[in-house]
Amino acid sequence: MEHTYRLTISCPDRVGIVAKVSQFIAEQGGWLTEANYHADAETTWFFMRNEIKAESLKLGLDAFREAFAPIADEYGMEWNLVDSQQKRRVVILASHASHCIADLLHRWHSDELDCDIPLVISNHENLRSMVEWHGIPFEYVPVDKNNKAPAQARVMELTSQYRADCVVLARYMQIVPPEFCQAYAGRMINIHHSFLPSFIGANPYQKAFERGVKLIGATSHYVTEQLDEGPIIEQDVIRVSHRHSKEDMVRLGKDVEKAVLARALRNHLEDRVLVKGNKTVVFD
Amino acid sequence: MEHTYRLTISCPDRVGIVAKVSQFIAEQGGWLTEANYHADAETTWFFMRNEIKAESLKLGLDAFREAFAPIADEYGMEWNLVDSQQKRRVVILASHASHCIADLLHRWHSDELDCDIPLVISNHENLRSMVEWHGIPFEYVPVDKNNKAPAQARVMELTSQYRADCVVLARYMQIVPPEFCQAYAGRMINIHHSFLPSFIGANPYQKAFERGVKLIGATSHYVTEQLDEGPIIEQDVIRVSHRHSKEDMVRLGKDVEKAVLARALRNHLEDRVLVKGNKTVVFD
Amino acid sequence: MEHTYRLTISCPDRVGIVAKVSQFIAEQGGWLTEANYHADAETTWFFMRNEIKAESLKLGLDAFREAFAPIADEYGMEWNLVDSQQKRRVVILASHASHCIADLLHRWHSDELDCDIPLVISNHENLRSMVEWHGIPFEYVPVDKNNKAPAQARVMELTSQYRADCVVLARYMQIVPPEFCQAYAGRMINIHHSFLPSFIGANPYQKAFERGVKLIGATSHYVTEQLDEGPIIEQDVIRVSHRHSKEDMVRLGKDVEKAVLARALRNHLEDRVLVKGNKTVVFD
Amino acid sequence: MEHTYRLTISCPDRVGIVAKVSQFIAEQGGWLTEANYHADAETTWFFMRNEIKAESLKLGLDAFREAFAPIADEYGMEWNLVDSQQKRRVVILASHASHCIADLLHRWHSDELDCDIPLVISNHENLRSMVEWHGIPFEYVPVDKNNKAPAQARVMELTSQYRADCVVLARYMQIVPPEFCQAYAGRMINIHHSFLPSFIGANPYQKAFERGVKLIGATSHYVTEQLDEGPIIEQDVIRVSHRHSKEDMVRLGKDVEKAVLARALRNHLEDRVLVKGNKTVVFD
Repeated sequence: MEHTYRLTISCPDRVGIVAKVSQFIAEQGGWLTEANYHADAETTWFFMRNEIKAESLKLGLDAFREAFAPIADEYGMEWNLVDSQQKRRVVILASHASHCIADLLHRWHSDELDCDIPLVISNHENLRSMVEWHGIPFEYVPVDKNNKAPAQARVMELTSQYRADCVVLARYMQIVPPEFCQAYAGRMINIHHSFLPSFIGANPYQKAFERGVKLIGATSHYVTEQLDEGPIIEQDVIRVSHRHSKEDMVRLGKDVEKAVLARALRNHLEDRVLVKGNKTVVFD
Repeated sequence: MEHTYRLTISCPDRVGIVAKVSQFIAEQGGWLTEANYHADAETTWFFMRNEIKAESLKLGLDAFREAFAPIADEYGMEWNLVDSQQKRRVVILASHASHCIADLLHRWHSDELDCDIPLVISNHENLRSMVEWHGIPFEYVPVDKNNKAPAQARVMELTSQYRADCVVLARYMQIVPPEFCQAYAGRMINIHHSFLPSFIGANPYQKAFERGVKLIGATSHYVTEQLDEGPIIEQDVIRVSHRHSKEDMVRLGKDVEKAVLARALRNHLEDRVLVKGNKTVVFD
Repeated sequence: MEHTYRLTISCPDRVGIVAKVSQFIAEQGGWLTEANYHADAETTWFFMRNEIKAESLKLGLDAFREAFAPIADEYGMEWNLVDSQQKRRVVILASHASHCIADLLHRWHSDELDCDIPLVISNHENLRSMVEWHGIPFEYVPVDKNNKAPAQARVMELTSQYRADCVVLARYMQIVPPEFCQAYAGRMINIHHSFLPSFIGANPYQKAFERGVKLIGATSHYVTEQLDEGPIIEQDVIRVSHRHSKEDMVRLGKDVEKAVLARALRNHLEDRVLVKGNKTVVFD
Repeated sequence: MEHTYRLTISCPDRVGIVAKVSQFIAEQGGWLTEANYHADAETTWFFMRNEIKAESLKLGLDAFREAFAPIADEYGMEWNLVDSQQKRRVVILASHASHCIADLLHRWHSDELDCDIPLVISNHENLRSMVEWHGIPFEYVPVDKNNKAPAQARVMELTSQYRADCVVLARYMQIVPPEFCQAYAGRMINIHHSFLPSFIGANPYQKAFERGVKLIGATSHYVTEQLDEGPIIEQDVIRVSHRHSKEDMVRLGKDVEKAVLARALRNHLEDRVLVKGNKTVVFD
């Protein structure tokens, strides 16, 4: 994977933003390997992602940031500059179900996900062996009715201790406290096992089965304090019919869940997802 | 299209139904061109569709019905026997939007839909010329706040007068009164412009746009008194992204709507859809 | 639809292209409603599409061209500047099958396709009434074994006489002579009824049926002198199974064909398709 | 998973087959949990799959077979009766790539694939640890230009020694000798990394990249002596664009490959795939 800097920007739209930014990049010798722009007509907000060959730049990361800051100020930009070689640290929270985490770990193991996975936390022990086979520490933090608060505190403590840049809820199935959501706003990714906003809340496959839908789906979104209401990163569906029992839907749904979560995480790790309000721009 | 009899059955599941029915058919010399069976484990209800070459049968339609009735009684069957050459009469209700009705009329014109279309009713005049070009009568029944009841009565009167076997709401966008729903229970098909149960009610594309979903869809269902709650016959989706405005979603959604409605109607016309409670079995 | 200028560019990749072009646009006051960039790593070729609000520009079309020419020269650009209000003239060639042309005409009639359709040419008479209902002239140019050359000449003559900017082969099913391909290179769009490069040549559904494939498809491509070998603009597929006869495949395939052709044409008309060698960049 | 007997039949079509078979099943007290029928109009061949609750039957497997044989003879049936509790033994052949085998092993580990996996054979060592973590023996059989025949002999010997009922080529990438194909006719499943018949042979992603297709795919088929020509069980595709390099296609293709192979194998293990000539009937 090529060594690049990724510059993501969002700001109020006006004439000349692309010119200003690309002029700046060109002045630093920056060779664009990819550039994406989106002007949102509804909000008149502008979004931009530039991927620049690191070796083409005359400046290092800090000098680039310093030199770019005045432009960012002038245009009222929210912006971020990332070095593709600084791997993000992704802590995964899982529960009993193995399909999403097995898929993520295999992709990571196969160099498909460009990140470190310093820790997996689960409220069940059953995934320990699989996680540890990958050389990743596994922490068991059981949750029951009586220990929710201390369990949540322990999860947050571990996440902090392992310096997570990003948290993935790989079918974690436990409530995440507001302070955790806030601490990882735009950096905590959940996979919901329905095509949101259909079947919000618990037991979506049961509800889908009862409603007799002909497609079931999954949704990956950033976690906010409102359950299942955060900005959607990716969704997909699969066809079902009367021949499928609720158990079949659960089984078929797994394939959609893991695919959707993996695509969402990959896009997040490549800084392709920009959030504005409750919506995302995904430059994939 | 081959001349066939279609025998559809649903009844409580038990040992020997297939044997009994297929034995009966074989005794009449019936050559099965297609046979479908579904045993629903949840409801322990059994569904069956047999398509039989008409020329292979020793019996005509009425004699077949008479001879089969004792078996149906013995097994507590709800059943139906249809002659594929007796074309169903489909009255289409439309509003201003042309995409669904243009699609249906073209398919009918191209012999893709095996039915007669004796009448199109609309609360706008704009589709008259297109409908009449197809040689189909067009009735304009305007609806406004003050004439809803008489307009509804007129629609029902026309539907009855033209002896509709089936009513299709091709983006009709008007409330259908309960007595109309009841009169055409299991024979009135609607296309809803969302992936139900997401975005029930009005303006689904606006809601989809606001929620930032990554797929939009359409749902064809039998109309019941509960708005958007009837048994789903067919659904499909199409991918959207941040690049799509609400207007783009409306445009892209049209393609899904017309495809979903056409598939639902075709399956209905071929007696492939069996309803049980609020769900369908679709032997496609 | 907003009045815009569309500037499409392709050239050898190097540092500073985006800066140079966007700087120029900004200097003219140009407000970008959409901008797309692609740097092809394999060919080190760069592709760019800018859509600019016409009213934001200080320059008219000709003045813009004149002012931009030196930049284009400096960077060795192939480029094009289009006024979105100058509708392209699309001549459609059809044969007996109606599904693609009916779909295109309905989209055009519904303002989904931003073009004029000054003429439809067919080697059969059966579509005349449908075409003329849309207010479009219809020319019947029969083709048989003995008149191929004069028929081809007549088609080219008519296309020229009606000043076609673009030619669409909507299941025309006749060989197009090399000089016609050359005259409309990059402006003549065909729909092939298979998922190319599978089943090149005649009777693809028959071949698909015999091979027992589980998906069938369609391909829209620019026409070149090599049959079915031109740059692909769009493709799609639909699922089939053992239950589908060859006739079913033909029927199901129609829906894919018309959808694929409509998407390809729409992208072409919006100057979203850039050709390089035998491949396309589609900024959709 | 319920204990069932699966009776699959194919024979020349005629009146009364369903009656005869279902009559027989009913006489033995057989409760059908699923029944599928297909009459192929082209070949006038009939296909049937019956799944019967084991506990409902008065007969054991051998007695059922003996009692059914006269019917089978009368109708010229090719038939098979399988006890769902007798797990099939699946030997997997892999090479260096891990995605398909990791997916299969995880599904097996999660009880999604109803089989035993007594052995994995590979011509590389890199997968040993992953395989052995699952408690499955791993045999390394290197292949090079000079040892092809003995390597093939060793693979066949191991397959035989571990009493494989079914062989899966999970991106094995080595030629399989004719006698191996014959020994496992209809029981050896390959995954080809293209949408066959597109891009037969080596390097399909390279070819797809060069041709500029807009969808790439994968095909699972029974292995025959003709490379990539065997009966297709399952296919699927994924959308690509100019933004995707050949490496991206390889990566995206992996997801299609593993999904297609898993679905094909699952259907095979549930006796849902019936082969006739070079085509399959898949009762999914």
